[in-house]
Amino acid sequence: MPTALIVLAAGQGTRMQSDLPKVMHELGGVPLFAHALASGAALEPERTVLVVGHGAEAVKRAARDLDDSIAIAVQENQAGTADAVAAARDSLTGFDGDAVVLYGDTPFISGDTLGRMLAARDAGADVVVLGFVAENPGRYGRLVLDGDRLLRIVEFKDANPAERDITLCNSGVVAADAGLLFDLIENVGNDNASGEYYLTDIVAIANARGLSCVAITCDEAETLGINTRAELAGAEARFQAGKRAEALDNGVTLVAPDTVFFAHDTWVGRDAVVEPNVVFGPGVTVETGARIRAFSHLEGCHVSRDAVVGPFARLRPGAELAEGAKVGNFVEIKQAQIAAGAKVNHLTYIGNAYVGEEANIGAGTVTCNYDGVSKHHTHIGARSFIGSDTMLVAPVRIGDDAMTATGTVITRDVPDGAMAIGRAQQTNKDGLWPKMLAKLKRMSTKPTS
Amino acid sequence: MPTALIVLAAGQGTRMQSDLPKVMHELGGVPLFAHALASGAALEPERTVLVVGHGAEAVKRAARDLDDSIAIAVQENQAGTADAVAAARDSLTGFDGDAVVLYGDTPFISGDTLGRMLAARDAGADVVVLGFVAENPGRYGRLVLDGDRLLRIVEFKDANPAERDITLCNSGVVAADAGLLFDLIENVGNDNASGEYYLTDIVAIANARGLSCVAITCDEAETLGINTRAELAGAEARFQAGKRAEALDNGVTLVAPDTVFFAHDTWVGRDAVVEPNVVFGPGVTVETGARIRAFSHLEGCHVSRDAVVGPFARLRPGAELAEGAKVGNFVEIKQAQIAAGAKVNHLTYIGNAYVGEEANIGAGTVTCNYDGVSKHHTHIGARSFIGSDTMLVAPVRIGDDAMTATGTVITRDVPDGAMAIGRAQQTNKDGLWPKMLAKLKRMSTKPTS
Amino acid sequence: MPTALIVLAAGQGTRMQSDLPKVMHELGGVPLFAHALASGAALEPERTVLVVGHGAEAVKRAARDLDDSIAIAVQENQAGTADAVAAARDSLTGFDGDAVVLYGDTPFISGDTLGRMLAARDAGADVVVLGFVAENPGRYGRLVLDGDRLLRIVEFKDANPAERDITLCNSGVVAADAGLLFDLIENVGNDNASGEYYLTDIVAIANARGLSCVAITCDEAETLGINTRAELAGAEARFQAGKRAEALDNGVTLVAPDTVFFAHDTWVGRDAVVEPNVVFGPGVTVETGARIRAFSHLEGCHVSRDAVVGPFARLRPGAELAEGAKVGNFVEIKQAQIAAGAKVNHLTYIGNAYVGEEANIGAGTVTCNYDGVSKHHTHIGARSFIGSDTMLVAPVRIGDDAMTATGTVITRDVPDGAMAIGRAQQTNKDGLWPKMLAKLKRMSTKPTS
Repeated sequence: MPTALIVLAAGQGTRMQSDLPKVMHELGGVPLFAHALASGAALEPERTVLVVGHGAEAVKRAARDLDDSIAIAVQENQAGTADAVAAARDSLTGFDGDAVVLYGDTPFISGDTLGRMLAARDAGADVVVLGFVAENPGRYGRLVLDGDRLLRIVEFKDANPAERDITLCNSGVVAADAGLLFDLIENVGNDNASGEYYLTDIVAIANARGLSCVAITCDEAETLGINTRAELAGAEARFQAGKRAEALDNGVTLVAPDTVFFAHDTWVGRDAVVEPNVVFGPGVTVETGARIRAFSHLEGCHVSRDAVVGPFARLRPGAELAEGAKVGNFVEIKQAQIAAGAKVNHLTYIGNAYVGEEANIGAGTVTCNYDGVSKHHTHIGARSFIGSDTMLVAPVRIGDDAMTATGTVITRDVPDGAMAIGRAQQTNKDGLWPKMLAKLKRMSTKPTS
Repeated sequence: MPTALIVLAAGQGTRMQSDLPKVMHELGGVPLFAHALASGAALEPERTVLVVGHGAEAVKRAARDLDDSIAIAVQENQAGTADAVAAARDSLTGFDGDAVVLYGDTPFISGDTLGRMLAARDAGADVVVLGFVAENPGRYGRLVLDGDRLLRIVEFKDANPAERDITLCNSGVVAADAGLLFDLIENVGNDNASGEYYLTDIVAIANARGLSCVAITCDEAETLGINTRAELAGAEARFQAGKRAEALDNGVTLVAPDTVFFAHDTWVGRDAVVEPNVVFGPGVTVETGARIRAFSHLEGCHVSRDAVVGPFARLRPGAELAEGAKVGNFVEIKQAQIAAGAKVNHLTYIGNAYVGEEANIGAGTVTCNYDGVSKHHTHIGARSFIGSDTMLVAPVRIGDDAMTATGTVITRDVPDGAMAIGRAQQTNKDGLWPKMLAKLKRMSTKPTS
Repeated sequence: MPTALIVLAAGQGTRMQSDLPKVMHELGGVPLFAHALASGAALEPERTVLVVGHGAEAVKRAARDLDDSIAIAVQENQAGTADAVAAARDSLTGFDGDAVVLYGDTPFISGDTLGRMLAARDAGADVVVLGFVAENPGRYGRLVLDGDRLLRIVEFKDANPAERDITLCNSGVVAADAGLLFDLIENVGNDNASGEYYLTDIVAIANARGLSCVAITCDEAETLGINTRAELAGAEARFQAGKRAEALDNGVTLVAPDTVFFAHDTWVGRDAVVEPNVVFGPGVTVETGARIRAFSHLEGCHVSRDAVVGPFARLRPGAELAEGAKVGNFVEIKQAQIAAGAKVNHLTYIGNAYVGEEANIGAGTVTCNYDGVSKHHTHIGARSFIGSDTMLVAPVRIGDDAMTATGTVITRDVPDGAMAIGRAQQTNKDGLWPKMLAKLKRMSTKPTS
């Protein structure tokens, strides 16, 4: 049956102490709500509706960046979860199938868990609610069962002592036929202390109609919601622990796993080695046998087999290292291909450039790619030898097997096999420095008049 | 009533395995004893006396650096805590009020706890002792109570079995009228195994005189004393945990709190983002919305709203980034203002300088601020474009809307709107490099004669 | 009695998910098997035999690099531990003494434990087996004792319920007279489920001959074997915890011990300070009072008393810092002596060089040590002042008290006291930059034809 996701992302998250809407805070390098979308993607939904409210424009833009097929529904006033789901109705006009309600601030629900919820739907349940056995049920809503039937969801403050003893709690995640869901929601009232419309009320309404409601359970950790900065940091730690364990299982060497930070989409190949203190931003792939040395920072880049990065290297978006390429300390690479066996070992900036096979880039080299208005490209040919402190004023082309002399500013193309040089002659002025130094000392101690 | 602090800081700390006196080891970027002073500052003391002994000169200098109103008293021989307090007597000549005795190696006593001690004084107690219920009382001194009255403090080795069962232990912190305190101390003897004068004995003496002694209790964690390097590292961890929690509560995003190190006085604004692996030395303020990227090191600097620092940036004392300024990778800033919207993105040293609004500093730029004797200033005007590898030989002034060509050594001022250039012409020597390379290879394989 | 070590290092370690043989994975900066060798070195063995199999060539090369006196024996087919020990027989021809069998994937057996095993041999035991009381005995082999006598070792799957209740488990480490060991092994059969020859069977065989077998026990943690990447990471964490505690005990200040990574042979002196986020590769010694600042990476180098390194410094093999030398941020030092009081503070590469006493190296300096074929040496004399962005094209010699002007490419020696300069004159072209900028803007918006 076709599936639609409804992801609620309208809350402000007052306890975050932030001007950003809660779901825009990042986890694993992407906004929080992207994780609920990723969980739901396991269901291969036909449609996805993101319900936004606080900071609607920012959330909308971020959602479009992730996937422009996502429908955006705006919840004008935050009048409870049922009201939020109702806001998605128009976006699902003409949709016939199951709707699954997820939460933008609940990033760890697994695709497998959602699959089990839909399986319960297929097995005949009209409404499926995701519950968890809480270690400390505290003030969570409780799921009241009768055998396999879910009778109702009771808020803690409305629960009687026997209900408070229940440890099966409500995650808020719900699956039902979309049409039925919106129909049930229309019957939810707001006659309660906060004057809000609660999605949870649909269970009692469905039961009153003689429909069947069931609870599916998952591990409490999957239902972790985020309300404060500390909880966000805790969620990040949990996310990182998962990614680290996954990398180890896949045959990656992490010398000190706790010091390596992954993004949601980092991919590292078997027998790659990641030394301590490495940060992966989004969009990084590292092939087998590559070594990422300590204190390296990678974003949006590709590192091929047997390449070596760092220590103290920064690969920015668009950096592509071919097989066996080396990028060393205090080197920044951006929008550049470093071909097989090429070396960029020291104190260098390579941006908007191609560095050819087996080329050797000396220390202090800079591709001067920006003229104050636009960015331009630098081409460095195979086996070229770029002397230290070469400035490559782009657009410029260094041929294959060419050489630039130390300290040269390259403003014109260098043909294959040529040597380019441009520098003033060195003059030694004998005995001058001790005299200059003495004079500088006199001047520095002279009282300012 | 006026208050005086007496902070005991005379011990050597043999178990630290160090030539430094114990209280000079750092916690949160300042010497250990500064934390006891900071706790005591909550009482707004009229006078503060630091009792020094081992490494007296070093401790004295460090104290003067912190606050030159602190009186320094020297304990000539380390003959016990009562002897140490007695050393403070001359510094409190003419003082009439309460004295509070603190310890330079006990950094976590809260101002609130000290306030409660003085409140007990105000309520009529003559001597107030700070105690704590120890999880493992071990060899701590025990506080023997009779109802609310503190009868005496008994050292573990002198305690009978019933006394050893007491879990209320002595922190050593004491408050009393200053005159009374010195009077009681005069009556303390040294007829014990170690031949030392114990401050704790004043309780029994006071009781014998019919004075009232009481105990105030605090959390054991506040009374943590430091005796070894491992304990110091543990205290640093506790200190950092506190600062991290505080930052999260204030609405700072810490992606990985455990990898961020704060100094005692770090201030970070709401909605600032601090990425993994950031070290704050003393004297840093970061405004709201700023982003401190991974692998950054900041000391004595100010980062304004929406500025971006790092990754791999170092801000040294006197660095001031205005709104929206950017300091990128492998960049060092020292004693310099970076004005609003200016960019210093790559491999650059800016020291003793002003960088104007919206100026753009190319990769490999250096302000050559040191001539071998003195430091000089560089001014870079608003909207200027400093080409890569520009050397700015200070003192020098680049005007507004000016430009320096890549690889130029600037030794004279550049007027507003001018372009400064100084470089040798590039020459291409066709076909030369393969020949040179062949020659170099022959030479390198020639046997040395 | 002379001792021989037999270290079994032939396994592939399928669960490592790696093309590398298991014992080649690194712990503390050296291959795993080196740790067993280091443990055994406490016995001052007369001979050491490493039994290799999977990845034999790689393991052999690594062993030769560590110590070329190690004999290498190849186990052709992996037919069990007895078969592996048998492979060592030829390498011990003519050896008369005790043999101790260790495992390349078991890095934490202490020299003290091995000493106790040999003491048991000296006290008359024919075969000594190392056991440990397991917290969760699980599927470990069990040591069956009768009083002090070790009767046999029973594999878990062959154990009866009473034997399974035994918590004393087999570590696999064995000591016996070498001749006896090989003799017993000849009698081991492979009539078991896996068809392998188990070393453990020698205990029953020895008992059947009326020989005496005993068990020596050690802490379970010493017997930790490594089978997965996660276990390797756990072992590294344990190794690091040990090194950190050792450093603290020796009077080193580690501000944040968990962020400092040591190699197996790192030596740091008393009162040295190591700030957060420092990585030590193999071969580093740091003298007393030195300070290693945050984000530093050191390998194969020596840092003398009161020298300061970092933050963001990289010392590579052959870097030697004399007393009070300073190496600052974004600086790489390789194969170079930095003499007393010399300063290399910013954005510099010094390789294959000598920097004299009190010399001052400006920002952006590079020793251009590589000509495309060979490496050459740079000498910088005492008290010299190297201006920023000086390129030192090696081989080259800067005399004492000499100076190089900012931005000079030095290709010829500079005599003592001389000042070397080579640069183009600066020209200011008034009013040019705003015009150029306007033109660049027009060009960038022009549609590409």
